Amino acid sequence: MLLEKTLESISDLSKENIEFAKNRQRYLAKPPGSLGKLEDISIKLAGIYGQNFYDTSNKVILAYAGDHGVHEEGISVQPQSVTADHFPNYAKGICSVGIISKQYNAKVVAVDVGINTDKVLEGIINKKIRKGTRNIAKGPAMTKEEAIKSIEVGIEMANQVIDDGARIVGLGEMGICNTTPSSAIVSVVTGKSVREVTGLGAGTLPSGLEHKIKIIEQAIKLNNPDPKDAIDILAKVGGYEIGAMAGTILGCGARKIPVVLDGFISYAGAMIAMILNPKVIDYVIASHMSAEPASKITLEYLGLEASLNLNMRLGEGTGAALMFSIIETANQVYTNMFIFDSTTIPVIPEQK
Amino acid sequence: MLLEKTLESISDLSKENIEFAKNRQRYLAKPPGSLGKLEDISIKLAGIYGQNFYDTSNKVILAYAGDHGVHEEGISVQPQSVTADHFPNYAKGICSVGIISKQYNAKVVAVDVGINTDKVLEGIINKKIRKGTRNIAKGPAMTKEEAIKSIEVGIEMANQVIDDGARIVGLGEMGICNTTPSSAIVSVVTGKSVREVTGLGAGTLPSGLEHKIKIIEQAIKLNNPDPKDAIDILAKVGGYEIGAMAGTILGCGARKIPVVLDGFISYAGAMIAMILNPKVIDYVIASHMSAEPASKITLEYLGLEASLNLNMRLGEGTGAALMFSIIETANQVYTNMFIFDSTTIPVIPEQK
Repeated sequence: MLLEKTLESISDLSKENIEFAKNRQRYLAKPPGSLGKLEDISIKLAGIYGQNFYDTSNKVILAYAGDHGVHEEGISVQPQSVTADHFPNYAKGICSVGIISKQYNAKVVAVDVGINTDKVLEGIINKKIRKGTRNIAKGPAMTKEEAIKSIEVGIEMANQVIDDGARIVGLGEMGICNTTPSSAIVSVVTGKSVREVTGLGAGTLPSGLEHKIKIIEQAIKLNNPDPKDAIDILAKVGGYEIGAMAGTILGCGARKIPVVLDGFISYAGAMIAMILNPKVIDYVIASHMSAEPASKITLEYLGLEASLNLNMRLGEGTGAALMFSIIETANQVYTNMFIFDSTTIPVIPEQK
Repeated sequence: MLLEKTLESISDLSKENIEFAKNRQRYLAKPPGSLGKLEDISIKLAGIYGQNFYDTSNKVILAYAGDHGVHEEGISVQPQSVTADHFPNYAKGICSVGIISKQYNAKVVAVDVGINTDKVLEGIINKKIRKGTRNIAKGPAMTKEEAIKSIEVGIEMANQVIDDGARIVGLGEMGICNTTPSSAIVSVVTGKSVREVTGLGAGTLPSGLEHKIKIIEQAIKLNNPDPKDAIDILAKVGGYEIGAMAGTILGCGARKIPVVLDGFISYAGAMIAMILNPKVIDYVIASHMSAEPASKITLEYLGLEASLNLNMRLGEGTGAALMFSIIETANQVYTNMFIFDSTTIPVIPEQK
């Protein structure tokens, strides 16, 4: 019900506000188009918010963690317990995303959607669906009900942080092994071979790459997900945190709040969201080009462009948090730059 | 004398501090290498400052403006007077670089090295060498003495802002038509054809591109600069603000202060500096990939990588100012992230 209602609530961007912003960019004190993506972002934000001017200062990273049954296939050199051990550091602000968020005055909200532990995790919101997915190399990751539930948790959390004042949301995640389901999703959705869309993630050594590819190929062959059915894909080869990220994208779209991608896992989440409602991509802003080799083709499939090229492959929300600052810059320049007095400095024509 | 003394003062980065930083990055709470360029930058900074930990909070954009005799060939749709009219806005903080610098708590110091005006420009430091270069399509841009003088102004300004407390310097510029001398320099230094290294800059329309290429080809043929002689190149096809940017790079290198490039004009300045002393590139950090088509090959020639990909072609120092924030992030993460307790979370091996 919540998912259906949310999907129906996603509307087009406001053409009127986009026109206003485009026109304003034409007269600001610079050659039109010369600030590139900073201009594009300011125009997109006007369309998203449905406002000529807007405030992006209340920023939240929504980070989801889950474990993966496929970990038992020995893909990552990191033990699965790292998810439970490290995720509380998101709330403490002493890990990468915490430090970057502090610098940019953003809040990190960390949500357990499927960590394989019974421990109470300090500072973490408990929305655990199950203690980790099932092993996709041996069967589906989750039931369809669990897949829908994971998306709905993402919608609920988006609504909650927006109700609390968030004006922009960034995606974060943690889950040892979660580039494995992400590559599986990207392969199924794009039709690219597993080899083309699989990299080392953060925890696989070069010597383990062939094994990782083999396991993902096996998972897709065995489960045979329908590329047009997002719930089927998510249930068969996905992960709870990926579903929650998809849900947050949908939830933000329905509330007209921009949502910022992080790295490769979030690209997979965006694909799930896009299949459910293609319009939602208009509400999404890419941040960095992940070091995963398939990042370029995945972002192209989504119709998005990365602004940061930092060769990062950590996840956590680090790229999204960095992007907050670029988005804030886009807004500052758009709002505060003076307008050329055309009696002294002529407005020059656009180059295209 | 100042130039020679500065060139002699540029030494190697500190190997000892680089080793410390590399080792620290290995034990921070993330897979080694997973923060990509943020890690590389933090390590480079340790080597530049010769310190294990360092402060980058005092940030200055040094922006230089000059006019160009070649403007009379009708390359830009903007009148030359825009340089004099717009440059004072750098000091007022109401143009792009001013707004971005304010957001990131950086100071803009704006220096006239060759604007074609007799007017006193409010808030601008007057180091005018001449009221614009001569037309490179008809002869050399400047005398060798003027070329050296422009570099020395850049060194002096670097010394001045560093004496005043700057711990990181970004380059900015203004000069209607200044991608024309920049493309000429890049063509001469790299040996690439003028066509390969020439784009529209901020003020040429697509219909004017062939004319721009023809003028640059003519300037190189007529003046025949020696690709190994930086002063000869700068004098024959350069510009005063390009010389000043080269000087600031050298001055920062001599003082062990990192210097951040902006867009295409600054790439040309870095080439002049690199020919004078190749070691200085170790002190340079690239910011964004300019929209100019030759940006990629130019940065590769310099051995640098852009972190931002925003399709910008404005200059002013906008890319450098944005990069200040990424550099600050690199430092924050490097300094403040906790170190994994290897009894609970093992330090995983590097992927390469």
